[in-house]
Amino acid sequence: MQLSTDQVIIFLISISVMLFSAKILGEIFIKLKQPAIIGEILAGILLGPTVFGMISPGTFQWLFPLHNEVKIALDSFTTIAVILLLLISGLEVDLSIVLRQGKKAVSTSLMGLIVPFVLGFGVSYLFPRLMGIGEDNSKFIFALFMGTALSISALPVIAKTLMDLNIFKTKIGFIIIAAAMLNDLFGWLIFSVILGMMGTNKHGFTFEQTFAYTITFVLFALSIGKKIINKVIPWIQTKISFPGGILNFILILGFLGAAFTEFIGIHAIFGAFIVGIAIGDSVHLKEETRQIIHQFVSNIFAPLFFVSIGLRVNFIANFDIVIVLTILILAFAGKVIGCGFGAYWSGLNKNESLVVGFGMNSRGTMEIILGILALQAGLIHEEVFVGLVIMALFTSISSAPLMTYFLKEKDKTKFKNLVKEQFVILSNENEKGKVLSQLVDVASLDLKIDKEVILKAVLARENTLSTGIANYLAVPHAKIKIKNPFICIAVNKRGIDFEAADGTLSKIIVLLLTPENNNELQLQLLAEIVAKFKDKDQIESLLMLETRNEFCEGLKKLA
Amino acid sequence: MQLSTDQVIIFLISISVMLFSAKILGEIFIKLKQPAIIGEILAGILLGPTVFGMISPGTFQWLFPLHNEVKIALDSFTTIAVILLLLISGLEVDLSIVLRQGKKAVSTSLMGLIVPFVLGFGVSYLFPRLMGIGEDNSKFIFALFMGTALSISALPVIAKTLMDLNIFKTKIGFIIIAAAMLNDLFGWLIFSVILGMMGTNKHGFTFEQTFAYTITFVLFALSIGKKIINKVIPWIQTKISFPGGILNFILILGFLGAAFTEFIGIHAIFGAFIVGIAIGDSVHLKEETRQIIHQFVSNIFAPLFFVSIGLRVNFIANFDIVIVLTILILAFAGKVIGCGFGAYWSGLNKNESLVVGFGMNSRGTMEIILGILALQAGLIHEEVFVGLVIMALFTSISSAPLMTYFLKEKDKTKFKNLVKEQFVILSNENEKGKVLSQLVDVASLDLKIDKEVILKAVLARENTLSTGIANYLAVPHAKIKIKNPFICIAVNKRGIDFEAADGTLSKIIVLLLTPENNNELQLQLLAEIVAKFKDKDQIESLLMLETRNEFCEGLKKLA
Repeated sequence: MQLSTDQVIIFLISISVMLFSAKILGEIFIKLKQPAIIGEILAGILLGPTVFGMISPGTFQWLFPLHNEVKIALDSFTTIAVILLLLISGLEVDLSIVLRQGKKAVSTSLMGLIVPFVLGFGVSYLFPRLMGIGEDNSKFIFALFMGTALSISALPVIAKTLMDLNIFKTKIGFIIIAAAMLNDLFGWLIFSVILGMMGTNKHGFTFEQTFAYTITFVLFALSIGKKIINKVIPWIQTKISFPGGILNFILILGFLGAAFTEFIGIHAIFGAFIVGIAIGDSVHLKEETRQIIHQFVSNIFAPLFFVSIGLRVNFIANFDIVIVLTILILAFAGKVIGCGFGAYWSGLNKNESLVVGFGMNSRGTMEIILGILALQAGLIHEEVFVGLVIMALFTSISSAPLMTYFLKEKDKTKFKNLVKEQFVILSNENEKGKVLSQLVDVASLDLKIDKEVILKAVLARENTLSTGIANYLAVPHAKIKIKNPFICIAVNKRGIDFEAADGTLSKIIVLLLTPENNNELQLQLLAEIVAKFKDKDQIESLLMLETRNEFCEGLKKLA
Repeated sequence: MQLSTDQVIIFLISISVMLFSAKILGEIFIKLKQPAIIGEILAGILLGPTVFGMISPGTFQWLFPLHNEVKIALDSFTTIAVILLLLISGLEVDLSIVLRQGKKAVSTSLMGLIVPFVLGFGVSYLFPRLMGIGEDNSKFIFALFMGTALSISALPVIAKTLMDLNIFKTKIGFIIIAAAMLNDLFGWLIFSVILGMMGTNKHGFTFEQTFAYTITFVLFALSIGKKIINKVIPWIQTKISFPGGILNFILILGFLGAAFTEFIGIHAIFGAFIVGIAIGDSVHLKEETRQIIHQFVSNIFAPLFFVSIGLRVNFIANFDIVIVLTILILAFAGKVIGCGFGAYWSGLNKNESLVVGFGMNSRGTMEIILGILALQAGLIHEEVFVGLVIMALFTSISSAPLMTYFLKEKDKTKFKNLVKEQFVILSNENEKGKVLSQLVDVASLDLKIDKEVILKAVLARENTLSTGIANYLAVPHAKIKIKNPFICIAVNKRGIDFEAADGTLSKIIVLLLTPENNNELQLQLLAEIVAKFKDKDQIESLLMLETRNEFCEGLKKLA
């Protein structure tokens, strides 16, 4: 058995066509600030039975035959491709980042696993007909699969999005990456369990054995294995010709890990992923080595795999709006709520938590790989597969814009962005009531709310406890019926007694109005303002200024 | 049709085993200052039916099955591997080097093609039984194949050897590389013709059509194609994400070139090679891009291919000493004589020519690829294939040591290395006859040749035309019965009249004795000595020195 001349020609042309269309569409999505894989998957849908196969079925079947040696040749390449893809995904996982983010990452990650899993499992189990599944025995495993498929993130896509948004190395970026890493690790563990239960295992292992071997493999690889690798890498890099030796080492280990996990009854890619983590954690691995593998895999092998997804299924014929919407809603709800609450409980504010939630929402690579495995195993039908792919595309595409929106929302509530020149007044009054009246006048005019309403709320607070702080600052405040917080500042060089703790007269009076039902936002802004006035010298030099414009700029610059 | 779980496991393990053993043996040969591919081919012989298959036939057939999907998967990888290998070989070809070496390269290359081809063709056609071939119709094509197989060099192996010997960027290095490039280009053209004649062509082209398409393809690719590529590359490198865009471009073009040549009836690898040349010639191609492709291909794909060679044939069962020796002798004789004379006629001396001859003698990659193609096409049988592989290994292994030997031989005849302190005498004589007598005394003692014999020869020359040159130099000389040239120098500060052209008295008298039958060596050394005395000031300051040791060192340092 070997490829004939004609088959070699077809094989070469089909690989070229796949790579070419993947690059063109991938590049378009890169220019649109989207991950390339979205374009690569779309390229496959265009080349596959959905579009090209409909327009020109003969040429399509000639180029991508279903039942001969060319199919096997392409299959063997996509098999190696997905193994290498998971290997480099693993290389990107840095367990030390996870450890450093500690509680925040664990909380975000766990909630980001549990909520989507429960949602996905629950809905699929209770309403299987929504997904076109009958009420038979398989619905339990199907529900388990859906739960898992919805709870795994796509680390490479997430990392790419964070880099594009330039927040990879910020607090939020680290939390998202750390949570996604944990998420993937646990998600794959769960998935391997499901694969074991599905009985795709052909080597006579019981489910318990497969499970035990998997856990043992992971623990071994990430403890002793990792240590041995960390010792071996410097040896290889100095004794064996570079970078050939280390490239070979990484690939061989990846392939053997893949073969092992395939053998114990879970999928090859899991082994490659774990080996990747164990290798990638080594401090000795040179950047050059990473680059060579990364570039070759993500530019040659990965596109072949992503294009091959679209070749499998007709996305129009198998498009079922109920299934697609159900999966989309479950996916968004599960991840955004789960990760969002996880992040919120660990101490982030609402907008930051939403950024984390949408950041973790990207599925790309992983769901699709799961989907293919499940499709091959007969666990799901084409309609669900199409739903999963569309969900993966949609969550990935929407991730960056939604994160950007909430990053801006988050910024909108910053003191710096609320201070505006037209809301800074120079006051000469010498009575607290009169200054407050001046400030409320400005607010009333801008917010188009009756002056008396605002004044009443402000005075109510003032009468309970006067709002003088220290360092010439007073912050009269109130919650009223508005959508966004509002700040208006009076500069009064005489000073007015707001009963400040340090006995100073208040010369800068900041009126802070926040939405009625958002206690947290008020506290957050109050804390921010007080923190900005911590340096008395700085405030004193600020008070030397003359014009409204100068005051406005000076206030914005307070660190 | 797709790979089953078991087949994926076997596929992964067999790839890992191939890569691992290739690396181990390749590395051993690197440490022995030999090209890695020798180790990689040996790894295949060890893993193949020759050794591993004999020891443990069951495991061997399990790991490298002959008739199922795993075979196709491995085949598709080695097919892509050899295409990529020729692509990077093409990238290494720099046509401008060929042009710059001009006549020398053309002469060396043409003779290095013609002589082995005539030898290989002639012997195979006249004595086919030496190769185990019957006197039937196929012997003409077989003889053509043998002629071609013997005349193609292995550019990557040659380049590697030159780098190891640190003569890549010397005059000889450039000549060898340029000649090997031309050699490969023409060799492949001829081979494509043979493939056309063999009628492996299945697309209904006549031989003439195939030939015309091939020529057109080569001319187009290396003229207009090259220019277009040179324009497109900078555009891709700036507009498309780097290095992904350019990596894709190179591979796609390589695959399409391969598909095209396969389609017109010659082999895929030829197209990849030509495309490689067209791309590699671009000044815009970045070193980083070359590196990524080069490292991945030569460390991952190439070893897979080289190991796969050994898997095909049992090298012991198919070892035929007559065939092996015949091929070896034809190979050595053809290349060394052909290239050697080519280089000699273009103006190199004997030792330099031999360095070129042995440098060009390496076959590695190419003969073996040809051998596989011919084996698959039924043109040769296993015994000849084994002979070709052994020849490729043997010529490659012997290349570096033989070059080193003749490089040293070449150096032995340099003036610098012939000047020795014990052969420098300080003379006070004031007569030509007496100084010559002093010099011949020293020569006679060292060479153990009767003084009268040498003196007679020297005086015979001197009486014909006195040997005073200029700048205080005289070079009395003679050819006598010795193996290596001999130099003995008298420093005479008074000066003696040797009838020098510039009228100076000769103060440095160099007695040059060279082997009887080597006219060229005498001329070469005379020219070298005269050239070293071209700077009068330098010689005058040399004459200020005092001791023999100082003179000896001073003479050696003359540029």
